Amino acid sequence: MCGCLRSVYNAIMQQKQLTLVGLGLMGGSLARRLSQQGYTIQAIDLDKAALAQAHNDGVITAGYTSLAACGPDINWIILATPVRTILSQLADLPSLFPAGCWIMDLGSTKVDICRAMEALPRTFSAIGGHPMCGKETGGYASSDASLFDGQTFVLSPNRRTSPPLRAAAQTLVGAVGARPLEMSPSDHDAIVAYTSHLPYLLSAGLVRSAAGAAQSEQNLWPVSASGFRDTSRLAGTNAAVMLDILLTNREAVLAALDAHAEELLAVRGLLEAGAEESLLAWLEAAKNSYLQYRREKFDD
Amino acid sequence: MCGCLRSVYNAIMQQKQLTLVGLGLMGGSLARRLSQQGYTIQAIDLDKAALAQAHNDGVITAGYTSLAACGPDINWIILATPVRTILSQLADLPSLFPAGCWIMDLGSTKVDICRAMEALPRTFSAIGGHPMCGKETGGYASSDASLFDGQTFVLSPNRRTSPPLRAAAQTLVGAVGARPLEMSPSDHDAIVAYTSHLPYLLSAGLVRSAAGAAQSEQNLWPVSASGFRDTSRLAGTNAAVMLDILLTNREAVLAALDAHAEELLAVRGLLEAGAEESLLAWLEAAKNSYLQYRREKFDD
Repeated sequence: MCGCLRSVYNAIMQQKQLTLVGLGLMGGSLARRLSQQGYTIQAIDLDKAALAQAHNDGVITAGYTSLAACGPDINWIILATPVRTILSQLADLPSLFPAGCWIMDLGSTKVDICRAMEALPRTFSAIGGHPMCGKETGGYASSDASLFDGQTFVLSPNRRTSPPLRAAAQTLVGAVGARPLEMSPSDHDAIVAYTSHLPYLLSAGLVRSAAGAAQSEQNLWPVSASGFRDTSRLAGTNAAVMLDILLTNREAVLAALDAHAEELLAVRGLLEAGAEESLLAWLEAAKNSYLQYRREKFDD
Repeated sequence: MCGCLRSVYNAIMQQKQLTLVGLGLMGGSLARRLSQQGYTIQAIDLDKAALAQAHNDGVITAGYTSLAACGPDINWIILATPVRTILSQLADLPSLFPAGCWIMDLGSTKVDICRAMEALPRTFSAIGGHPMCGKETGGYASSDASLFDGQTFVLSPNRRTSPPLRAAAQTLVGAVGARPLEMSPSDHDAIVAYTSHLPYLLSAGLVRSAAGAAQSEQNLWPVSASGFRDTSRLAGTNAAVMLDILLTNREAVLAALDAHAEELLAVRGLLEAGAEESLLAWLEAAKNSYLQYRREKFDD
């Protein structure tokens, strides 16, 4: 093979040889789907049983308990750990891989991570990623090759993103069945404060306050119905994962909490005053916003 | 047939001859299931098309647009209208049916309704009812014979409840596939403030505040995922129905809103201060409450 062809061949192969850090719900689901699509994946996780299971499933070709253990011959690292772990791993990469490599992440906030990516040496190329899907259960045992099907997958190119990595990331997103959507880190974080972090906190506050009421109302849980089931679901999310998310998106989450509190303060006032017409108008505007969301998201 | 046997026969037949007021989601679903179980149902609704459809479906034997139109020979009325309509219908019953009859309702709050039942003349026997299920879509078109399957169905006996009606109500709840749970009107209303009305208001406030943010973030709806979908679902509930519910459960709803606001104020303070350990403890307590709820409700 001449040098030119070899370089093209290497470039193509590089795009399908992944080193995946974190074999939980997100990483595990990604590995399951990509291994079906011809990608070769070695994985890093502290959980040896998960590594063994994934190897047994034919999902990964090798498993290690640290990045340092898997040797320097690495093309493309996908970081699928909690946000602040990603930040600490990004800081470690230059000394582990002085020759550089491609980096992508699946972290739930993007501003801090993309800022850390931009601080990497120029031997690295890096792009932020965030698949907009999840479950309230975690771990490789919950992973699912179809998790990303039809979902939006945000990509945040930044000053450290090379054109080939940007194209390969788009290809990877398509390979897991998702729709790529490029977005700046700050737009992403402002949006998920409303669509993900605020709903989580409302859900967590709901179960905490309901649990308080359940201490004097013994039938509270049996009487709860499907509305409570759905509204409380996010409270089951892993607390350590949410801690990282909230701490790395603090300003946007505080703003979303305040906007929501203002809404509830308004409806509380209308209800207390028995201001029937204004209260109905508030409720109807909520329903109209809901219908607008359903139209724009689901073509309802 | 001797008088004694006729009286027993009449008592048994009475329990399966229903006059259903309101052929929406709840009334329509009840009628669908009970008509399969040997009950004979005549229905009252302002929507003639829904009456015609239900008659065509074999779900009702006759349809009228007012209680006054269906004649005085009535055994058991089920009121399946919004709460304040039920209150006004209860007030009309003594003049419409001076000989009295059995009354049950399916209203979403119970204190005001059971108080109005207790104010009926002694010729009436009445019991409060509330099936703990629903959908965010309404109307006979959304009704479903399996809506009540396995769900809790609260019954609120009160001073106007006779033993035969109490037993017949239990039988009816079993016939729709639900589990009867007797509860005082005030316990019921205190509980649903937390399990139903608070989740609704949180959901409505969520879509209102997210819609505000969407005005400057054009990708907000596309980026939203399943967490937002589930947490926002209740905001699609009929606003006029919710207005009645909130206005007839005002004190309990205000208390639940305040308890929730206190939780969110606490977590907001921890997040703003970056109080990592206390924030994690708050999130973990929420998850533990969620797991407790899932164990007690679903044996998870």
